[in-house]
Amino acid sequence: MMVMKNKEYVFKLTIKVRDYECDLQGVVNNSNYQRYMEHTRHEYLESLGENFGDMHKKGIDAFVSRVDIHYKSSLRSGDSFVSCLNLLKEGAKLVFYQDIYRLSDGVLAARGRVETVVVENGRLTRGEYFDDLLTRTMKKDL
Amino acid sequence: MMVMKNKEYVFKLTIKVRDYECDLQGVVNNSNYQRYMEHTRHEYLESLGENFGDMHKKGIDAFVSRVDIHYKSSLRSGDSFVSCLNLLKEGAKLVFYQDIYRLSDGVLAARGRVETVVVENGRLTRGEYFDDLLTRTMKKDL
Amino acid sequence: MMVMKNKEYVFKLTIKVRDYECDLQGVVNNSNYQRYMEHTRHEYLESLGENFGDMHKKGIDAFVSRVDIHYKSSLRSGDSFVSCLNLLKEGAKLVFYQDIYRLSDGVLAARGRVETVVVENGRLTRGEYFDDLLTRTMKKDL
Amino acid sequence: MMVMKNKEYVFKLTIKVRDYECDLQGVVNNSNYQRYMEHTRHEYLESLGENFGDMHKKGIDAFVSRVDIHYKSSLRSGDSFVSCLNLLKEGAKLVFYQDIYRLSDGVLAARGRVETVVVENGRLTRGEYFDDLLTRTMKKDL
Repeated sequence: MMVMKNKEYVFKLTIKVRDYECDLQGVVNNSNYQRYMEHTRHEYLESLGENFGDMHKKGIDAFVSRVDIHYKSSLRSGDSFVSCLNLLKEGAKLVFYQDIYRLSDGVLAARGRVETVVVENGRLTRGEYFDDLLTRTMKKDL
Repeated sequence: MMVMKNKEYVFKLTIKVRDYECDLQGVVNNSNYQRYMEHTRHEYLESLGENFGDMHKKGIDAFVSRVDIHYKSSLRSGDSFVSCLNLLKEGAKLVFYQDIYRLSDGVLAARGRVETVVVENGRLTRGEYFDDLLTRTMKKDL
Repeated sequence: MMVMKNKEYVFKLTIKVRDYECDLQGVVNNSNYQRYMEHTRHEYLESLGENFGDMHKKGIDAFVSRVDIHYKSSLRSGDSFVSCLNLLKEGAKLVFYQDIYRLSDGVLAARGRVETVVVENGRLTRGEYFDDLLTRTMKKDL
Repeated sequence: MMVMKNKEYVFKLTIKVRDYECDLQGVVNNSNYQRYMEHTRHEYLESLGENFGDMHKKGIDAFVSRVDIHYKSSLRSGDSFVSCLNLLKEGAKLVFYQDIYRLSDGVLAARGRVETVVVENGRLTRGEYFDDLLTRTMKKDL
Protein backbone atom coordinates (compact mmCIF):
# COMPACT_ATOMS: atom_id res chain seq x y z
CA MET A 1 0.00 0.00 0.00
CA MET A 2 1.00 3.54 -0.76
CA VAL A 3 2.03 5.32 2.38
CA MET A 4 2.51 9.03 2.94
CA LYS A 5 6.20 9.86 3.16
CA ASN A 6 8.79 11.98 1.53
CA LYS A 7 6.28 13.56 -0.84
CA GLU A 8 6.01 17.31 -0.42
CA TYR A 9 2.81 19.31 -0.58
CA VAL A 10 2.12 23.04 -0.59
CA PHE A 11 -0.83 22.61 1.77
CA LYS A 12 -2.09 20.03 4.25
CA LEU A 13 -5.25 19.91 6.33
CA THR A 14 -6.17 17.34 9.00
CA ILE A 15 -9.87 16.44 9.09
CA LYS A 16 -11.91 13.92 11.06
CA VAL A 17 -14.61 11.80 9.47
CA ARG A 18 -18.13 12.81 10.54
CA ASP A 19 -20.46 9.84 10.99
CA TYR A 20 -23.19 11.28 8.73
CA GLU A 21 -20.60 11.13 5.92
CA CYS A 22 -20.62 7.31 6.16
CA ASP A 23 -23.24 5.44 4.16
CA LEU A 24 -25.02 2.12 4.67
CA GLN A 25 -21.81 0.26 3.70
CA GLY A 26 -20.30 1.68 6.90
CA VAL A 27 -17.62 3.66 5.06
CA VAL A 28 -17.32 7.27 3.93
CA ASN A 29 -19.50 7.76 0.84
CA ASN A 30 -17.43 8.38 -2.30
CA SER A 31 -18.92 11.79 -2.95
CA ASN A 32 -17.58 13.06 0.36
CA TYR A 33 -13.95 12.68 -0.75
CA GLN A 34 -14.76 15.19 -3.48
CA ARG A 35 -16.15 17.46 -0.74
CA TYR A 36 -13.07 16.99 1.41
CA MET A 37 -10.95 17.97 -1.60
CA GLU A 38 -13.07 21.07 -2.28
CA HIS A 39 -12.81 22.15 1.35
CA THR A 40 -9.04 21.64 1.22
CA ARG A 41 -8.72 23.82 -1.89
CA HIS A 42 -10.81 26.55 -0.28
CA GLU A 43 -8.82 26.41 2.95
CA TYR A 44 -5.66 26.64 0.85
CA LEU A 45 -7.10 29.80 -0.74
CA GLU A 46 -7.80 31.18 2.74
CA SER A 47 -4.20 30.45 3.72
CA LEU A 48 -3.26 32.80 0.84
CA GLY A 49 -5.62 35.50 2.13
CA GLU A 50 -8.52 34.83 -0.27
CA ASN A 51 -12.06 33.64 0.58
CA PHE A 52 -14.24 31.75 -1.92
CA GLY A 53 -17.46 33.48 -0.84
CA ASP A 54 -15.88 36.92 -1.10
CA MET A 55 -14.53 36.06 -4.55
CA HIS A 56 -18.04 35.16 -5.69
CA LYS A 57 -19.35 38.50 -4.44
CA LYS A 58 -16.62 40.23 -6.52
CA GLY A 59 -17.81 38.35 -9.62
CA ILE A 60 -14.91 35.91 -9.67
CA ASP A 61 -15.71 32.21 -9.60
CA ALA A 62 -13.48 29.19 -9.92
CA PHE A 63 -15.38 26.28 -11.44
CA VAL A 64 -14.31 22.65 -11.52
CA SER A 65 -14.17 21.44 -15.12
CA ARG A 66 -13.01 17.89 -14.38
CA VAL A 67 -12.46 15.70 -11.36
CA ASP A 68 -10.68 12.34 -11.50
CA ILE A 69 -10.50 10.45 -8.20
CA HIS A 70 -8.94 7.05 -7.50
CA TYR A 71 -10.33 5.38 -4.39
CA LYS A 72 -7.68 3.28 -2.69
CA SER A 73 -8.73 2.50 0.88
CA SER A 74 -12.00 3.31 2.67
CA LEU A 75 -12.18 5.75 5.56
CA ARG A 76 -14.51 4.83 8.43
CA SER A 77 -16.18 6.23 11.54
CA GLY A 78 -13.53 7.44 13.96
CA ASP A 79 -10.83 7.93 11.30
CA SER A 80 -8.91 11.15 10.89
CA PHE A 81 -7.07 11.90 7.66
CA VAL A 82 -4.60 14.35 6.15
CA SER A 83 -5.80 16.05 2.99
CA CYS A 84 -2.79 17.19 0.92
CA LEU A 85 -2.57 19.44 -2.10
CA ASN A 86 -0.24 20.50 -4.88
CA LEU A 87 -1.15 22.52 -7.95
CA LEU A 88 0.08 23.35 -11.43
CA LYS A 89 -0.96 25.83 -14.08
CA GLU A 90 -1.69 23.80 -17.24
CA GLY A 91 -2.67 26.16 -20.05
CA ALA A 92 -5.57 28.27 -18.83
CA LYS A 93 -6.42 25.71 -16.19
CA LEU A 94 -5.36 25.48 -12.60
CA VAL A 95 -4.94 21.79 -11.80
CA PHE A 96 -4.93 20.47 -8.24
CA TYR A 97 -3.28 17.20 -7.28
CA GLN A 98 -4.89 16.05 -4.06
CA ASP A 99 -4.01 13.08 -1.87
CA ILE A 100 -5.89 11.94 1.21
CA TYR A 101 -4.04 9.77 3.73
CA ARG A 102 -5.50 8.04 6.77
CA LEU A 103 -3.84 9.59 9.80
CA SER A 104 -3.42 6.46 11.92
CA ASP A 105 -1.18 4.55 9.48
CA GLY A 106 -0.47 6.93 6.61
CA VAL A 107 -2.21 4.71 4.04
CA LEU A 108 -3.45 6.47 0.89
CA ALA A 109 -7.26 6.61 0.96
CA ALA A 110 -7.89 8.60 -2.23
CA ARG A 111 -5.95 10.41 -4.94
CA GLY A 112 -7.53 13.11 -7.05
CA ARG A 113 -6.73 15.40 -9.97
CA VAL A 114 -9.06 18.39 -10.16
CA GLU A 115 -9.09 20.83 -13.08
CA THR A 116 -10.48 24.30 -12.49
CA VAL A 117 -11.16 27.34 -14.64
CA VAL A 118 -11.70 30.92 -13.56
CA VAL A 119 -14.71 32.92 -14.70
CA GLU A 120 -14.81 36.70 -14.14
CA ASN A 121 -18.22 38.36 -14.46
CA GLY A 122 -19.46 35.47 -16.55
CA ARG A 123 -16.46 35.47 -18.93
CA LEU A 124 -14.02 32.55 -19.07
CA THR A 125 -10.47 33.78 -18.33
CA ARG A 126 -7.00 32.32 -18.56
CA GLY A 127 -6.80 32.40 -14.76
CA GLU A 128 -4.87 35.67 -14.52
CA TYR A 129 -6.58 36.48 -11.22
CA PHE A 130 -4.82 33.61 -9.51
CA ASP A 131 -1.48 33.97 -11.22
CA ASP A 132 -0.17 36.50 -8.77
CA LEU A 133 -1.90 34.94 -5.79
CA LEU A 134 -0.75 31.42 -6.47
CA THR A 135 2.74 31.84 -7.85
CA ARG A 136 3.81 32.70 -4.33
CA THR A 137 3.49 29.05 -3.40
CA MET A 138 2.90 27.10 -6.58
CA LYS A 139 5.32 24.28 -7.22
CA LYS A 140 6.88 24.39 -10.68
CA ASP A 141 6.68 20.67 -11.02
CA LEU A 142 5.63 17.69 -8.92
CA MET B 1 -48.81 3.45 14.47
CA MET B 2 -50.07 6.59 12.82
CA VAL B 3 -51.15 5.88 9.28
CA MET B 4 -51.87 8.36 6.51
CA LYS B 5 -55.58 8.60 5.89
CA ASN B 6 -58.37 11.13 5.82
CA LYS B 7 -56.00 14.00 6.61
CA GLU B 8 -55.96 16.62 3.89
CA TYR B 9 -52.89 18.48 2.67
CA VAL B 10 -52.44 21.38 0.30
CA PHE B 11 -49.41 19.75 -1.32
CA LYS B 12 -47.92 16.26 -1.61
CA LEU B 13 -44.71 15.05 -3.21
CA THR B 14 -43.58 11.44 -3.66
CA ILE B 15 -39.83 10.92 -3.24
CA LYS B 16 -37.58 7.85 -3.21
CA VAL B 17 -34.78 7.41 -0.68
CA ARG B 18 -31.32 7.75 -2.23
CA ASP B 19 -28.79 5.32 -0.75
CA TYR B 20 -26.23 8.04 0.02
CA GLU B 21 -28.85 9.54 2.34
CA CYS B 22 -28.59 6.46 4.58
CA ASP B 23 -25.91 6.46 7.25
CA LEU B 24 -23.91 3.71 8.94
CA GLN B 25 -27.01 2.69 10.93
CA GLY B 26 -28.54 1.64 7.60
CA VAL B 27 -31.39 4.16 7.82
CA VAL B 28 -31.93 7.64 6.40
CA ASN B 29 -29.86 10.12 8.42
CA ASN B 30 -32.05 12.46 10.50
CA SER B 31 -30.78 15.60 8.79
CA ASN B 32 -32.13 14.38 5.45
CA TYR B 33 -35.76 14.54 6.63
CA GLN B 34 -35.16 18.26 7.13
CA ARG B 35 -33.85 18.37 3.55
CA TYR B 36 -36.87 16.44 2.25
CA MET B 37 -39.11 18.97 4.00
CA GLU B 38 -37.20 21.92 2.51
CA HIS B 39 -37.43 20.43 -0.97
CA THR B 40 -41.19 19.88 -0.46
CA ARG B 41 -41.71 23.51 0.56
CA HIS B 42 -39.75 24.73 -2.47
CA GLU B 43 -41.67 22.43 -4.81
CA TYR B 44 -44.87 23.74 -3.27
CA LEU B 45 -43.67 27.26 -4.09
CA GLU B 46 -42.99 26.16 -7.68
CA SER B 47 -46.52 24.75 -7.89
CA LEU B 48 -47.65 28.32 -7.14
CA GLY B 49 -45.44 29.73 -9.89
CA GLU B 50 -42.56 30.93 -7.70
CA ASN B 51 -38.93 29.71 -7.67
CA PHE B 52 -36.71 29.98 -4.59
CA GLY B 53 -33.57 30.83 -6.59
CA ASP B 54 -35.38 33.55 -8.56
CA MET B 55 -36.77 35.00 -5.31
CA HIS B 56 -33.22 35.25 -3.94
CA LYS B 57 -32.10 37.13 -7.08
CA LYS B 58 -34.97 39.60 -6.51
CA GLY B 59 -33.74 40.21 -2.93
CA ILE B 60 -36.48 38.16 -1.29
CA ASP B 61 -35.45 35.32 1.00
CA ALA B 62 -37.50 33.05 3.21
CA PHE B 63 -35.45 31.92 6.20
CA VAL B 64 -36.28 29.10 8.59
CA SER B 65 -36.43 30.46 12.16
CA ARG B 66 -37.33 27.19 13.87
CA VAL B 67 -37.67 23.54 12.95
CA ASP B 68 -39.25 20.93 15.23
CA ILE B 69 -39.22 17.37 13.89
CA HIS B 70 -40.55 14.20 15.55
CA TYR B 71 -38.98 11.04 14.17
CA LYS B 72 -41.45 8.17 14.25
CA SER B 73 -40.27 5.37 11.98
CA SER B 74 -37.02 5.06 10.00
CA LEU B 75 -36.93 5.11 6.23
CA ARG B 76 -34.48 2.71 4.54
CA SER B 77 -32.83 1.92 1.23
CA GLY B 78 -35.49 1.14 -1.35
CA ASP B 79 -38.29 3.04 0.46
CA SER B 80 -40.40 5.66 -1.24
CA PHE B 81 -42.36 8.16 0.81
CA VAL B 82 -45.02 10.85 0.47
CA SER B 83 -44.01 14.26 1.80
CA CYS B 84 -47.13 16.25 2.73
CA LEU B 85 -47.56 19.89 3.65
CA ASN B 86 -50.02 22.32 5.17
CA LEU B 87 -49.30 25.87 6.23
CA LEU B 88 -50.67 28.66 8.41
CA LYS B 89 -49.86 32.31 8.86
CA GLU B 90 -49.08 32.80 12.56
CA GLY B 91 -48.36 36.47 13.21
CA ALA B 92 -45.55 37.50 10.86
CA LYS B 93 -44.47 33.91 10.44
CA LEU B 94 -45.43 31.38 7.83
CA VAL B 95 -45.59 28.01 9.58
CA PHE B 96 -45.42 24.74 7.66
CA TYR B 97 -46.84 21.50 9.05
CA GLN B 98 -45.09 18.68 7.25
CA ASP B 99 -45.72 14.95 7.48
CA ILE B 100 -43.69 12.23 5.78
CA TYR B 101 -45.35 8.84 5.26
CA ARG B 102 -43.71 5.65 3.98
CA LEU B 103 -45.39 4.82 0.71
CA SER B 104 -45.55 1.03 1.08
CA ASP B 105 -47.72 0.98 4.21
CA GLY B 106 -48.65 4.60 4.93
CA VAL B 107 -46.85 4.63 8.29
CA LEU B 108 -45.81 8.07 9.57
CA ALA B 109 -42.01 8.38 9.34
CA ALA B 110 -41.57 11.98 10.53
CA ARG B 111 -43.68 14.96 11.49
CA GLY B 112 -42.33 18.50 11.38
CA ARG B 113 -43.34 22.05 12.21
CA VAL B 114 -41.21 24.63 10.40
CA GLU B 115 -41.41 28.36 11.09
CA THR B 116 -40.22 30.74 8.39
CA VAL B 117 -39.80 34.49 8.10
CA VAL B 118 -39.44 36.58 4.97
CA VAL B 119 -36.60 39.05 4.50
CA GLU B 120 -36.73 41.61 1.67
CA ASN B 121 -33.46 43.30 0.77
CA GLY B 122 -32.08 42.50 4.20
CA ARG B 123 -35.12 43.82 6.09
CA LEU B 124 -37.39 41.50 8.11
CA THR B 125 -40.97 41.75 6.83
CA ARG B 126 -44.37 40.55 8.02
CA GLY B 127 -44.46 38.19 5.05
CA GLU B 128 -46.59 40.41 2.82
CA TYR B 129 -44.84 39.02 -0.26
CA PHE B 130 -46.40 35.62 0.28
CA ASP B 131 -49.78 36.78 1.46
CA ASP B 132 -51.17 37.10 -2.02
CA LEU B 133 -49.29 34.09 -3.35
CA LEU B 134 -50.24 31.76 -0.56
CA THR B 135 -53.79 32.74 0.31
CA ARG B 136 -54.79 31.11 -2.96
CA THR B 137 -54.22 27.72 -1.38
CA MET B 138 -53.58 28.26 2.32
CA LYS B 139 -55.84 26.33 4.62
CA LYS B 140 -57.49 28.45 7.30
CA ASP B 141 -57.08 25.78 9.90
CA LEU B 142 -55.75 22.23 10.12
CA MET C 1 -28.16 39.39 20.66
CA MET C 2 -27.37 36.40 22.79
CA VAL C 3 -23.66 36.09 23.31
CA MET C 4 -21.70 33.15 24.65
CA LYS C 5 -20.50 33.86 28.17
CA ASN C 6 -20.71 32.46 31.66
CA LYS C 7 -22.74 29.46 30.51
CA GLU C 8 -21.02 26.17 31.19
CA TYR C 9 -21.02 23.18 28.89
CA VAL C 10 -19.78 19.62 29.34
CA PHE C 11 -18.33 19.58 25.82
CA LYS C 12 -17.27 22.11 23.18
CA LEU C 13 -16.01 21.62 19.64
CA THR C 14 -14.70 24.31 17.28
CA ILE C 15 -15.64 23.77 13.61
CA LYS C 16 -15.15 25.80 10.46
CA VAL C 17 -17.89 26.23 7.86
CA ARG C 18 -17.20 24.33 4.62
CA ASP C 19 -18.31 26.21 1.53
CA TYR C 20 -20.33 23.29 0.14
CA GLU C 21 -22.47 23.59 3.29
CA CYS C 22 -23.66 27.02 2.12
CA ASP C 23 -26.66 27.15 -0.19
CA LEU C 24 -27.76 29.57 -2.90
CA GLN C 25 -28.74 32.12 -0.23
CA GLY C 26 -25.02 32.35 0.58
CA VAL C 27 -25.46 31.05 4.15
CA VAL C 28 -25.10 27.64 5.77
CA ASN C 29 -28.14 25.53 4.86
CA ASN C 30 -30.37 24.87 7.86
CA SER C 31 -30.01 21.09 7.67
CA ASN C 32 -26.27 21.41 8.27
CA TYR C 33 -26.74 22.77 11.80
CA GLN C 34 -28.43 19.47 12.59
CA ARG C 35 -25.36 17.74 11.14
CA TYR C 36 -23.01 19.91 13.18
CA MET C 37 -25.00 18.97 16.30
CA GLU C 38 -24.86 15.24 15.45
CA HIS C 39 -21.11 15.43 14.90
CA THR C 40 -20.73 17.23 18.22
CA ARG C 41 -22.69 14.55 20.09
CA HIS C 42 -20.59 11.81 18.47
CA GLU C 43 -17.35 13.60 19.28
CA TYR C 44 -18.59 13.96 22.84
CA LEU C 45 -19.13 10.19 22.90
CA GLU C 46 -15.57 9.70 21.61
CA SER C 47 -14.29 11.95 24.39
CA LEU C 48 -15.87 9.41 26.78
CA GLY C 49 -14.13 6.52 25.00
CA GLU C 50 -17.08 5.34 22.89
CA ASN C 51 -17.44 5.32 19.09
CA PHE C 52 -20.80 5.48 17.32
CA GLY C 53 -19.78 3.06 14.55
CA ASP C 54 -18.44 0.52 17.05
CA MET C 55 -21.66 0.81 19.08
CA HIS C 56 -23.67 -0.01 15.95
CA LYS C 57 -21.54 -3.12 15.34
CA LYS C 58 -22.29 -4.22 18.93
CA GLY C 59 -26.04 -3.88 18.25
CA ILE C 60 -26.44 -0.65 20.22
CA ASP C 61 -27.91 2.35 18.41
CA ALA C 62 -28.89 5.75 19.69
CA PHE C 63 -31.70 7.18 17.57
CA VAL C 64 -32.93 10.77 17.54
CA SER C 65 -36.62 10.86 18.41
CA ARG C 66 -37.05 14.65 18.23
CA VAL C 67 -35.00 17.64 17.19
CA ASP C 68 -36.04 21.24 17.91
CA ILE C 69 -33.71 23.91 16.54
CA HIS C 70 -34.04 27.70 16.79
CA TYR C 71 -32.09 29.55 14.12
CA LYS C 72 -30.82 32.87 15.43
CA SER C 73 -28.05 34.18 13.17
CA SER C 74 -26.72 32.76 9.89
CA LEU C 75 -23.23 31.35 9.54
CA ARG C 76 -21.39 32.12 6.29
CA SER C 77 -18.36 31.15 4.23
CA GLY C 78 -15.22 31.75 6.26
CA ASP C 79 -16.96 31.57 9.66
CA SER C 80 -15.78 29.31 12.44
CA PHE C 81 -18.09 28.41 15.31
CA VAL C 82 -18.10 26.73 18.70
CA SER C 83 -20.58 23.88 19.04
CA CYS C 84 -21.48 23.39 22.74
CA LEU C 85 -23.36 20.62 24.49
CA ASN C 86 -25.07 19.77 27.75
CA LEU C 87 -27.28 16.77 28.40
CA LEU C 88 -29.92 15.50 30.81
CA LYS C 89 -31.62 12.18 31.36
CA GLU C 90 -35.36 12.81 31.08
CA GLY C 91 -37.24 9.57 31.74
CA ALA C 92 -35.88 6.97 29.31
CA LYS C 93 -34.58 9.68 27.00
CA LEU C 94 -31.19 11.29 26.82
CA VAL C 95 -31.75 14.92 25.91
CA PHE C 96 -28.99 17.10 24.47
CA TYR C 97 -29.05 20.89 24.76
CA GLN C 98 -26.82 22.22 22.01
CA ASP C 99 -25.77 25.79 21.31
CA ILE C 100 -23.73 26.98 18.33
CA TYR C 101 -21.90 30.30 18.65
CA ARG C 102 -20.04 32.16 15.90
CA LEU C 103 -16.41 32.26 16.94
CA SER C 104 -15.56 35.79 15.80
CA ASP C 105 -18.06 37.62 18.02
CA GLY C 106 -19.67 34.94 20.22
CA VAL C 107 -23.15 35.54 18.77
CA LEU C 108 -25.60 32.64 19.11
CA ALA C 109 -26.18 31.11 15.66
CA ALA C 110 -28.47 28.22 16.60
CA ARG C 111 -29.90 26.57 19.69
CA GLY C 112 -31.13 22.98 19.66
CA ARG C 113 -32.80 20.43 21.91
CA VAL C 114 -32.29 16.87 20.71
CA GLU C 115 -34.05 13.87 22.24
CA THR C 116 -32.48 10.45 21.78
CA VAL C 117 -33.46 6.90 22.68
CA VAL C 118 -31.23 3.85 22.87
CA VAL C 119 -32.09 0.63 21.05
CA GLU C 120 -30.21 -2.60 21.87
CA ASN C 121 -30.51 -5.41 19.34
CA GLY C 122 -33.71 -3.91 18.00
CA ARG C 123 -35.31 -3.48 21.44
CA LEU C 124 -36.08 -0.04 22.90
CA THR C 125 -34.29 0.41 26.24
CA ARG C 126 -34.40 2.90 29.07
CA GLY C 127 -30.89 3.99 28.13
CA GLU C 128 -29.10 1.88 30.76
CA TYR C 129 -26.11 1.49 28.43
CA PHE C 130 -25.28 5.16 28.71
CA ASP C 131 -26.11 5.60 32.37
CA ASP C 132 -22.68 4.54 33.54
CA LEU C 133 -20.87 6.14 30.63
CA LEU C 134 -22.56 9.49 30.89
CA THR C 135 -23.01 10.02 34.61
CA ARG C 136 -19.29 10.65 34.74
CA THR C 137 -19.83 14.00 33.09
CA MET C 138 -23.56 14.63 32.96
CA LYS C 139 -24.68 17.85 34.57
CA LYS C 140 -27.51 17.40 37.06
CA ASP C 141 -29.18 20.56 35.91
CA LEU C 142 -28.57 23.33 33.42
CA MET D 1 -22.72 22.35 -27.18
CA MET D 2 -23.30 18.64 -26.93
CA VAL D 3 -26.98 17.87 -27.04
CA MET D 4 -28.73 14.63 -26.16
CA LYS D 5 -29.87 12.87 -29.28
CA ASN D 6 -29.51 9.57 -31.06
CA LYS D 7 -27.30 8.15 -28.33
CA GLU D 8 -28.80 5.07 -26.72
CA TYR D 9 -28.67 4.22 -23.04
CA VAL D 10 -29.67 1.13 -21.10
CA PHE D 11 -31.20 3.24 -18.32
CA LYS D 12 -32.47 6.80 -17.86
CA LEU D 13 -33.79 8.59 -14.80
CA THR D 14 -35.32 12.08 -14.67
CA ILE D 15 -34.43 14.04 -11.52
CA LYS D 16 -35.13 17.60 -10.37
CA VAL D 17 -32.47 19.74 -8.71
CA ARG D 18 -33.11 20.30 -5.00
CA ASP D 19 -32.21 23.79 -3.82
CA TYR D 20 -30.02 22.55 -0.94
CA GLU D 21 -27.84 20.91 -3.61
CA CYS D 22 -26.90 24.37 -4.91
CA ASP D 23 -23.96 26.13 -3.27
CA LEU D 24 -23.09 29.78 -2.75
CA GLN D 25 -22.22 30.11 -6.45
CA GLY D 26 -25.93 29.52 -7.14
CA VAL D 27 -25.32 26.29 -9.08
CA VAL D 28 -25.42 22.61 -8.16
CA ASN D 29 -22.29 21.76 -6.18
CA ASN D 30 -19.93 19.47 -8.13
CA SER D 31 -20.08 16.68 -5.57
CA ASN D 32 -23.82 16.32 -6.14
CA TYR D 33 -23.35 15.15 -9.74
CA GLN D 34 -21.43 12.22 -8.28
CA ARG D 35 -24.40 11.61 -5.99
CA TYR D 36 -26.85 11.83 -8.91
CA MET D 37 -24.73 9.25 -10.75
CA GLU D 38 -24.65 6.93 -7.73
CA HIS D 39 -28.42 7.17 -7.33
CA THR D 40 -28.85 6.42 -11.03
CA ARG D 41 -26.67 3.29 -10.80
CA HIS D 42 -28.61 2.09 -7.76
CA GLU D 43 -31.96 2.73 -9.45
CA TYR D 44 -30.66 0.83 -12.45
CA LEU D 45 -29.88 -2.09 -10.11
CA GLU D 46 -33.42 -1.87 -8.74
CA SER D 47 -34.79 -1.98 -12.27
CA LEU D 48 -32.99 -5.35 -12.53
CA GLY D 49 -34.58 -6.56 -9.28
CA GLU D 50 -31.60 -5.93 -6.98
CA ASN D 51 -31.37 -3.50 -4.03
CA PHE D 52 -28.06 -2.03 -2.85
CA GLY D 53 -28.99 -2.18 0.84
CA ASP D 54 -30.11 -5.81 0.57
CA MET D 55 -26.87 -6.69 -1.25
CA HIS D 56 -24.87 -5.19 1.63
CA LYS D 57 -26.81 -7.34 4.13
CA LYS D 58 -25.92 -10.42 2.04
CA GLY D 59 -22.21 -9.49 2.26
CA ILE D 60 -21.97 -8.23 -1.31
CA ASP D 61 -20.74 -4.69 -1.86
CA ALA D 62 -19.95 -2.82 -5.04
CA PHE D 63 -17.28 -0.20 -4.39
CA VAL D 64 -16.28 2.66 -6.67
CA SER D 65 -12.58 2.42 -7.48
CA ARG D 66 -12.39 5.45 -9.76
CA VAL D 67 -14.65 8.29 -10.83
CA ASP D 68 -13.83 10.66 -13.69
CA ILE D 69 -16.34 13.45 -14.28
CA HIS D 70 -16.26 16.22 -16.88
CA TYR D 71 -18.38 19.22 -15.95
CA LYS D 72 -19.83 20.86 -19.04
CA SER D 73 -22.72 23.13 -18.07
CA SER D 74 -24.04 24.04 -14.61
CA LEU D 75 -27.43 22.96 -13.38
CA ARG D 76 -29.39 25.49 -11.32
CA SER D 77 -32.41 25.88 -9.05
CA GLY D 78 -35.53 24.84 -10.93
CA ASP D 79 -33.70 22.63 -13.47
CA SER D 80 -34.67 19.06 -14.14
CA PHE D 81 -32.25 16.70 -15.85
CA VAL D 82 -32.05 13.24 -17.39
CA SER D 83 -29.39 10.99 -15.90
CA CYS D 84 -28.38 8.33 -18.46
CA LEU D 85 -26.29 5.21 -18.08
CA ASN D 86 -24.45 2.59 -20.09
CA LEU D 87 -22.03 0.00 -18.72
CA LEU D 88 -19.27 -2.34 -19.85
CA LYS D 89 -17.35 -5.15 -18.19
CA GLU D 90 -13.66 -4.24 -18.47
CA GLY D 91 -11.58 -7.03 -16.93
CA ALA D 92 -12.82 -7.56 -13.39
CA LYS D 93 -14.34 -4.10 -13.32
CA LEU D 94 -17.82 -2.98 -14.12
CA VAL D 95 -17.51 0.45 -15.74
CA PHE D 96 -20.43 2.86 -15.95
CA TYR D 97 -20.62 5.60 -18.58
CA GLN D 98 -22.99 8.23 -17.25
CA ASP D 99 -24.28 11.36 -18.96
CA ILE D 100 -26.45 14.04 -17.38
CA TYR D 101 -28.49 16.27 -19.70
CA ARG D 102 -30.52 19.33 -18.73
CA LEU D 103 -34.12 18.50 -19.51
CA SER D 104 -35.23 21.90 -20.85
CA ASP D 105 -32.78 22.05 -23.78
CA GLY D 106 -30.96 18.69 -23.81
CA VAL D 107 -27.56 20.29 -23.17
CA LEU D 108 -24.93 18.01 -21.62
CA ALA D 109 -24.32 19.07 -18.01
CA ALA D 110 -21.84 16.38 -16.93
CA ARG D 111 -20.24 13.24 -18.30
CA GLY D 112 -18.78 10.57 -16.02
CA ARG D 113 -16.90 7.29 -16.18
CA VAL D 114 -17.22 5.30 -12.98
CA GLU D 115 -15.24 2.11 -12.30
CA THR D 116 -16.59 -0.32 -9.73
CA VAL D 117 -15.40 -3.55 -8.19
CA VAL D 118 -17.41 -6.16 -6.33
CA VAL D 119 -16.40 -7.40 -2.90
CA GLU D 120 -18.05 -10.52 -1.45
CA ASN D 121 -17.63 -11.07 2.28
CA GLY D 122 -14.56 -8.87 2.28
CA ARG D 123 -12.91 -10.62 -0.68
CA LEU D 124 -12.34 -8.84 -4.01
CA THR D 125 -14.07 -10.75 -6.82
CA ARG D 126 -14.05 -10.61 -10.60
CA GLY D 127 -17.66 -9.41 -10.46
CA GLU D 128 -19.25 -12.79 -11.12
CA TYR D 129 -22.25 -11.80 -8.99
CA PHE D 130 -23.29 -9.21 -11.53
CA ASP D 131 -22.40 -11.16 -14.64
CA ASP D 132 -25.71 -12.94 -14.78
CA LEU D 133 -27.70 -9.98 -13.52
CA LEU D 134 -26.20 -7.47 -15.87
CA THR D 135 -25.68 -9.40 -19.08
CA ARG D 136 -29.43 -9.26 -19.51
CA THR D 137 -29.16 -5.62 -20.42
CA MET D 138 -25.48 -4.80 -20.80
CA LYS D 139 -24.52 -3.25 -24.09
CA LYS D 140 -21.61 -5.00 -25.80
CA ASP D 141 -20.18 -1.73 -26.98
CA LEU D 142 -21.03 1.94 -26.86
